This record gives sequence, structure tokens and C-alpha cells, in this order.
Amino acid sequence: MADDLPRRIVAEALGTALLVATVVGSGIMAARLTHDVAISLLGNTLPTGAILVVLITILGPVSGAHFNPAVTLVFALRREIEASAALAYVVAQVVGGIAGTFLAHAMFELPILQASMTVRTGAGQWLAEAVAAFGLIFTILAGLRFRSDAIPWLVGLYITAAYWFTASTSFANPAVAIARALSDTFSGIRPVDLPGFIAAELLGALLAMALAGWLLAEPKPTDR
Amino acid sequence: MADDLPRRIVAEALGTALLVATVVGSGIMAARLTHDVAISLLGNTLPTGAILVVLITILGPVSGAHFNPAVTLVFALRREIEASAALAYVVAQVVGGIAGTFLAHAMFELPILQASMTVRTGAGQWLAEAVAAFGLIFTILAGLRFRSDAIPWLVGLYITAAYWFTASTSFANPAVAIARALSDTFSGIRPVDLPGFIAAELLGALLAMALAGWLLAEPKPTDR
Amino acid sequence: MADDLPRRIVAEALGTALLVATVVGSGIMAARLTHDVAISLLGNTLPTGAILVVLITILGPVSGAHFNPAVTLVFALRREIEASAALAYVVAQVVGGIAGTFLAHAMFELPILQASMTVRTGAGQWLAEAVAAFGLIFTILAGLRFRSDAIPWLVGLYITAAYWFTASTSFANPAVAIARALSDTFSGIRPVDLPGFIAAELLGALLAMALAGWLLAEPKPTDR
Amino acid sequence: MADDLPRRIVAEALGTALLVATVVGSGIMAARLTHDVAISLLGNTLPTGAILVVLITILGPVSGAHFNPAVTLVFALRREIEASAALAYVVAQVVGGIAGTFLAHAMFELPILQASMTVRTGAGQWLAEAVAAFGLIFTILAGLRFRSDAIPWLVGLYITAAYWFTASTSFANPAVAIARALSDTFSGIRPVDLPGFIAAELLGALLAMALAGWLLAEPKPTDR
Repeated sequence: MADDLPRRIVAEALGTALLVATVVGSGIMAARLTHDVAISLLGNTLPTGAILVVLITILGPVSGAHFNPAVTLVFALRREIEASAALAYVVAQVVGGIAGTFLAHAMFELPILQASMTVRTGAGQWLAEAVAAFGLIFTILAGLRFRSDAIPWLVGLYITAAYWFTASTSFANPAVAIARALSDTFSGIRPVDLPGFIAAELLGALLAMALAGWLLAEPKPTDR
Repeated sequence: MADDLPRRIVAEALGTALLVATVVGSGIMAARLTHDVAISLLGNTLPTGAILVVLITILGPVSGAHFNPAVTLVFALRREIEASAALAYVVAQVVGGIAGTFLAHAMFELPILQASMTVRTGAGQWLAEAVAAFGLIFTILAGLRFRSDAIPWLVGLYITAAYWFTASTSFANPAVAIARALSDTFSGIRPVDLPGFIAAELLGALLAMALAGWLLAEPKPTDR
Repeated sequence: MADDLPRRIVAEALGTALLVATVVGSGIMAARLTHDVAISLLGNTLPTGAILVVLITILGPVSGAHFNPAVTLVFALRREIEASAALAYVVAQVVGGIAGTFLAHAMFELPILQASMTVRTGAGQWLAEAVAAFGLIFTILAGLRFRSDAIPWLVGLYITAAYWFTASTSFANPAVAIARALSDTFSGIRPVDLPGFIAAELLGALLAMALAGWLLAEPKPTDR
Repeated sequence: MADDLPRRIVAEALGTALLVATVVGSGIMAARLTHDVAISLLGNTLPTGAILVVLITILGPVSGAHFNPAVTLVFALRREIEASAALAYVVAQVVGGIAGTFLAHAMFELPILQASMTVRTGAGQWLAEAVAAFGLIFTILAGLRFRSDAIPWLVGLYITAAYWFTASTSFANPAVAIARALSDTFSGIRPVDLPGFIAAELLGALLAMALAGWLLAEPKPTDR
């Protein structure tokens, strides 16, 4: 597997790039076509959920399809990925995510380099991001435990729900958050608001990991 | 299995909390973003259906993923769960559901404690709730009989349909109804209207159990 | 199997009733909540597609889940159902469908007995119904040939598409058409327009059966 | 298999015709029912994604369900289809696609023969088409490599996303593009803009083929 590290890194960068291109691109498309913000969010939600099912299915066998530093962190803490590979994954995710934003801007003929001015801050938003990441990581860990073949669908459906039930529209992903900070469009976030989001996401991820460690534990032999 | 009761109770509470947070939270989000009520209901329907597929898949192996006192009642009557565990399940569902409402309010920075003022009463609404619960319980029992692996999808898709074809938008769940009575937002219901809804739901559930007992019966050896 | 005929008949009636209750009920709900007809059609489409997946999955093992005289006719011509059972199926579908319309009206507190005044006639509409039924029957026959476990999804997704790509919004079902003639709401059709729709549906069904007989034929031993 | 060429050709023509009838027909329906362009695109997206899942599932076992000259080109270059059959496939796709446009026009009682006046040109659009086809071909090749049973869903979901995240709404198919040039409705494209689209699509397809050749390569024996 170690020999495959270059392929794994490229898969992480490619997957995160296409994920961010979908998030940012569908947001631009939706906001151009309607004045109703709920319809825009629908036009942002369905493509994001759909592309997640696709990307996790087709790149999961190559790299595990993390596309998310919070996911990679949890797997590193569970010692399911070596630290050096985890670091390479995170770099690939951030670089790939930014490339995805640039690609969306190029397709829609917008300036490539932008900084978002959309305010996303405050206790409610941070709680929402912690909840969003908690749910995402718990879903992934439970999926791995019980129905690993269903994980692409579980993640796509979870994000479909979380775009609407969390007050922050569920970024739940530090690499995607950084990439979205570079787009002053529907899905953007002010760069200055990134630290709060990223801290909340990592906190939610760690809480999910702790709960899953107990709730989803395999029964010990002595339990039987 | 008895040793696992704490985990099962936590799974029921967690699942019902996330289900209610999705129902209430997506209703708040949708109503904030549009004035078109049908779009709001779409923005409420898709997340609810999606999270049901996720929650039943990931928590079903732990607790059975009832998240609904009507479901637990039917399994207790079928002697598929012991009475004491059933009682604990129902308490966990109600407590978890209320926590889900509080969580949604906190994320959207609304007052935590509220009481709904949305009127939902009358013969049409009660008939709708009986139909909604009848269909839900029949779907679950038939799913268990023929395609247990498909139950998460069946429930998610059934509720997606029932949000629209029943005049009550298909609560179909006493614990969720109680939790929604504590939110004066899109998905709320006046506390005074709860008894009618809950009675109708339980009646529909019992009718489904009776019909399933005949329609889905396994052929007797003498039938062959 | 013959001993099970009562159960099969009840399953056909129940399934068609719930299908029609969904089509008519979601149409009423959608039209009440918005003035945008495309949003109403979305609110009519998603529940219909979703309930089809559910009903075919849970009642298919009991009766085959026809819910449609055009489907029963094709299976009778293929000698996969005996003529007397086929006749009983069609009666159950029509009676069940009408009951579904009545149930939707009762839930929404509308007069139970109505006749639609929605004009649906002309060459374009008839062509659309023939295409709709052709596609439905071909989908079912090809599903049975290659992926019988996927038929609930195939039918639900086909109808989701056909609600939009056929000019008639794809009734594709004589029993459902009759039931919809008894509702002067979003999904209705004038009783006088029924013969044209039903003739077109049966023609489309027979064309699909003929094409499938050739296109999907299993290779003969001498072909190898 | 060679003996089956007539069936394969008919399957390609039929599938492409129904695909185009869905794309063009649902666009006409949507644009008639609403003035909100984002809702029209939703009403165009959901049917297209749904029918792709259906058509690839039911015709894949007959012809491979290409429905797309870019797909056939890639398989020909990979020597997975003989050159003469590939040429017949492409002719069937173009003829079938045009028939699909005519069928949609007939159902909606529009003039059968039209030419689109919708401008779709420029660097952003061409980049979008290259990205759209790149993603489609990469999804298909990775699906074949890892989860061939999931390909109908992967393609349907990919196109659902790509309708929104690419600035061109993702034609990604030269035969469908030609057919859409003959419809002056929602989904049309000026005939004069076809060469740019088709060149971009073929370029994106070839890039995906090249990347997949490396990223998805099976490990060599000496790698182990």
C-alpha cells in the first residue's frame, strides 16, 4: 500500500477538488437562476449529496476517500493511517479544495482569486458546525462498523440533511471551509471566520470518535 | 443483549434527538429562506427522509432504531421486546426528542423553551395521522418480513411521501409530536392538540399490526 | 399460490389505494401551498416516486405489486397470471384506486364525491400516454429479465422522470386514471377524457411487450 | 455477441431516444410551468438523473448502454468494442437522439423541426463541457473497475450534480448535444455552437481516460 502513496494523494486532491467545484459551482449556478434563497439551497444541496455518493464510491478503493482533514485526523488517532500519510492527505485536501474553487470560478467566468465577505460567526454557527461534524464522523464510523458498502450513500444523505438542519449549512470539513473562504459567492465564508468553524469541526469530530468508541464497541468475549 | 441495555437506550435517545433536530431545524431553515410554503415543505421533507435512512442504518444494529413509541408498542405487543426495555425505550425517545428540539433552537439562536401555537386538530388531521402511522408500521412490518436490509430506505421514502400525501404532514410518531409541541416554528403543533394526534397514531399503528398479522402471514405447513 | 388469492387481491387493492392516495393527496397539498405549478408538480412527483418504491418492495412478494390493469394485461398475455386471477386483480385495482381518492378527500376535508373538470385530451396527450405506458412496461419487463431485485427502484425512478418528460404527466395506468377522474383537484382528469387515455395506455403497453419479446429475448441454444 | 449487433444497435438508439426525450421534454414542461429558472433546472435535473439510472440498468445488459459517442470512443480506444460496431453505435446514438427530440416536440404539440437559438459558447462554457465529460468518463471507468453493479446510480447521480456545478449544465455527450440543437426550447443549443461543445467533450473524455489509466491501474504482480 505504501507504494501507492502517490496515487492515494492524487485521489484525495482530485476528490476534494471535484467536491469543492460542486459546492461552489452549484451555489453560483443556483444564485444566478433564482432570487429565492431556499431554492438556491436546494440547488446547492442536491448536487453536493449526489457528488459525494459518486466520489466516495469511485475513489474510496484508492485512498479511502477522506476529502476532509477532520476525517483524516480521526483515522490517524485510531491508528488506521500512518502520521506521515495523514499529513500528506491533509495537504492534498487543502490544495485540491482550493483548486476546486478556482475551477468553479473559471467555468463561470468569474475572477479566479476572490475572498468571501459572507459573515458566518457566533455561538449558534459554531454549535451548528460542531453538530455537523459530530454527525458526519459518527455516521462514517458507524457505517464502517456495520455497513461499509453503504458509506457513500450514508455520507451523501447525511450531508443532504445537514445542509438544512444545521444553522451553518454544514461545512463540516476544514479543507472545504478554507476553499470556500476564497469564493465571494453563495457558498462563501469570510476568511476571518475560518478559525471558529475549523475549531468547532475538530471538536465535533473528536466527540463523535469518543462516543463511537463506547456506543459501537464490539462485544467483549466475556460479555457473552 | 440484556447487558447492552444502556447502549440501546443511548442509541434510541441519540437517534430520536438527531431525527427531531433535523425535522425542527430544517423547518426553521426553510421558513427563513423562502415565503413559498411548498418550498419550505420540500426543504423539510428531503432532510427528514435522508436522515431517517442514515439513522436507521447506523443505529439499527445497536437498538433496532425505533425512535418512535408507536413502533416500540407494536414490537412489545408482538413480544419482540421485553416490557421493561420497551418502557425504557419510550422514555429515551421522549427525552431524546425534546433534546433535539432544544438543540435546533440553540443552533438557530432561538429561545430554547417554546410552546407551539400551530393549530393541528379536527377529523381530517386525525384521519391523516392514523393513515400516516398505519402506513409507517405496515411498511416496517412488511420490510422485516421480506427485505429487512431495505428498511432504512423504505422508512425514509415512506416518510418522504407521507409528508405530502397526508393532510397532517405525517407526524406518525408520539415522541416526535411531543418534541415538536415545544417549538413555535414551521414544524410545531399546539400542546393541546397532542392527545388527538397521539391517539390517532396509536390507532393507526394497531390497525397496521392487525392487517399485517393476516396479510403477511407465513404460509402454514398445511397450506402447501 | 391459488389458496392465497384473497391475500393477493387485498394486496392489489391496498397498494393501488395507497398509490392513488399519494398521487391525489400530494397534489392537493402542493396546490394549497404554492401558486407555482412547477413546484406543485415537484411536490406531486417526489412522493409518487417514493411511495412506488415502498409499495412494490413490500407488496411485491404478496401479489406481484401490479397496481395497474395494463401491467396485469401484459402478464396475462404472457400467461404469467391466470385469466380469472387477472380479472380479479383489475377489479381490485379499480376499487382500491377509487378508495384511495376518497381517502385523500377525507384527509383534506373535501367532498368525497367529485368529478374532475381538468381537460386532458388531444393527439399530444394521447401520444404522451402511449409513450408513458410503453416506457413503464418496457422497464418492468427488462427489470424482470435482468435485475428483478431493482424493480421497485426502476419503477419509482421511471415515473419520477415520466411525470416531467411526457406532456400528460404520465398517468400510464387505467385504474389510477379512473380514480383521478373522481377528484377535481391538481391531479384530476375529466371522466370524458378517460377513454382516450386508457386506449393510449393499453396500446403503449402492448407495443412495449412486443418490442421486449424481441429485444430482450434470451439467446436460443442454436445461437451459441 | 456479434450475432446480437442488431439488438445492440436498437438498444443504443432506443436508449438515446428516451434519454433525449427526457432532457428535452422535461425542459419544455418545466419552462411552461414556472418563471423561476432554477426551478426549471430542478425540473430538468431530477428526470434526467432518474431516467439515466433506469436506462443504464435495463439496456446495459443488451448494448452496454453507452448512449454517448464519447463513451463509445473511449471503449473503442481501449479495444473493448470493435471499430465497426463502434461506428454503428455512434450512428444509432445520433439518429436515436434526434428521434427523441422529435418525440418530445410531438408530445408537447410543438413544430417537429426546429433549430435552437440559445447561445452557448465561450471559454467558460468549453471548460465546463470538458470538465463535465472528464467527470462522466472517469466515473464510468472507475465504476467499471470497482463497482460495476453501481454504474447506473453513479452516472445518474453524477449528471444530477453536473447539471448544476458546470456552467454549461453538462451536456457531456455529442449525440445529445446534436439532438438538443434541433430544439428551440429550454435545453437547446445553437447548431453553430456544437463544434466547440463536441471538441471540449471529446478532449475531456480523453483526459479522463489517460488519468484513469494511471490512477486506477491494477497493481502489477511485481508491486506486491
